[in-house]
Amino acid sequence: MLRINESVWRRRKLEFWDRLWEDLEIGYLDEDLLPVLIYFYIDRGTHTLSSCSGRIILADSTFPWSREETSVVYKKHSPVDTSEIAGIIDKTPVRRLWLNVTGPIIHVSTTSMDIADKILAIARNAGMKHSGILSISENKGIILELTTGVKLTHLLRCKDELITDISKLDKLVEVANQVLYEGKRILCRLFVELRENMPFTPDETIIKDLRRRGLTLEKLFPPSYCRELL
Amino acid sequence: MLRINESVWRRRKLEFWDRLWEDLEIGYLDEDLLPVLIYFYIDRGTHTLSSCSGRIILADSTFPWSREETSVVYKKHSPVDTSEIAGIIDKTPVRRLWLNVTGPIIHVSTTSMDIADKILAIARNAGMKHSGILSISENKGIILELTTGVKLTHLLRCKDELITDISKLDKLVEVANQVLYEGKRILCRLFVELRENMPFTPDETIIKDLRRRGLTLEKLFPPSYCRELL
Repeated sequence: MLRINESVWRRRKLEFWDRLWEDLEIGYLDEDLLPVLIYFYIDRGTHTLSSCSGRIILADSTFPWSREETSVVYKKHSPVDTSEIAGIIDKTPVRRLWLNVTGPIIHVSTTSMDIADKILAIARNAGMKHSGILSISENKGIILELTTGVKLTHLLRCKDELITDISKLDKLVEVANQVLYEGKRILCRLFVELRENMPFTPDETIIKDLRRRGLTLEKLFPPSYCRELL
Repeated sequence: MLRINESVWRRRKLEFWDRLWEDLEIGYLDEDLLPVLIYFYIDRGTHTLSSCSGRIILADSTFPWSREETSVVYKKHSPVDTSEIAGIIDKTPVRRLWLNVTGPIIHVSTTSMDIADKILAIARNAGMKHSGILSISENKGIILELTTGVKLTHLLRCKDELITDISKLDKLVEVANQVLYEGKRILCRLFVELRENMPFTPDETIIKDLRRRGLTLEKLFPPSYCRELL
């Protein structure tokens, strides 16, 4: 098997670590994710890449999965109110209007197949049943995608034809919020699994930097939504 | 890395090969898939596991991804008519009634990381962007899941409350059939990619058995839906 270039990988890990705190500062990082992500970083052979705690989106696109031509009309990482959506559904979309809810997705890079196996086991235990290895490369390491089957892609409107009547929105939003919650519940179980199992080998540089930021592992509280669930 | 036990793996491959033809005979195998699956088997280091060419389902379940408590009320691997769905939507479901469309999913087992890499590249080229390695085991080999982002999970009804009115069904079914078609289009591109690239190393036992069944690679026509697309 391909050997990972540990020194290049290490430099990338520290870059991603710095970027994490920059993203947090500018409000770009979904705060619900921070404690979970830190548990990956404190392991010597692990860091994270782009991740999401789960979200509700209104998208104007031909299909729910379309990327290039999608315009995200509304996005939130916490439960929504009918009133927030009712105003949008009223207007004619350029393509089609979709209500999309997704569960958590976390991308992880590791330096060995042994660590990759252990992390996949932790993720599956937590309920992230669709997790796997995306790619293996010398400099970027073994890239994992930890993900769930939690998903809703509901057609709200086609141009001038409303598919889901405004009078049905209360019920639909209730279900969408439940779907979001199911995803957060799995993220919470992941937090608990990571707290029990991480780090495999402590990353002293990261742990020292955490302390410098006034954080210790004991102070790593579960995300807020998780406190209700534990 | 873990070494694959080639003789155990080989025995499993030949068992799966026999089962494929039994499944075809009893109508359990989705025929659209056959030519695609055969292209995997003719490679010495590759076989397939459970797979699906993409389908439209009506499910009575709390969430679209629920397994244990799901009852599939309707299932079809080809486009549907509004009339087929209108009768079902009329009745009160036990939980909730969902219209779920999924793209193709193919599970593949290989004996080496090198083959796994090549197959993942072929799958991604064909548009199966969510493909990855699920697990690695001595006897079962390296298990890949080749899959797409093509998905629709639309809420039709909650108990007594209809979320999508029957008058909107024509438009919704049109979109569902388009989603199914997008999946088949990717499967068709996979067929073309496989035809160009497989086998890496011919599996003479399989090729001989194919000939015994009156099939040769030249006779492996693209699936019917694919002929319109090529």
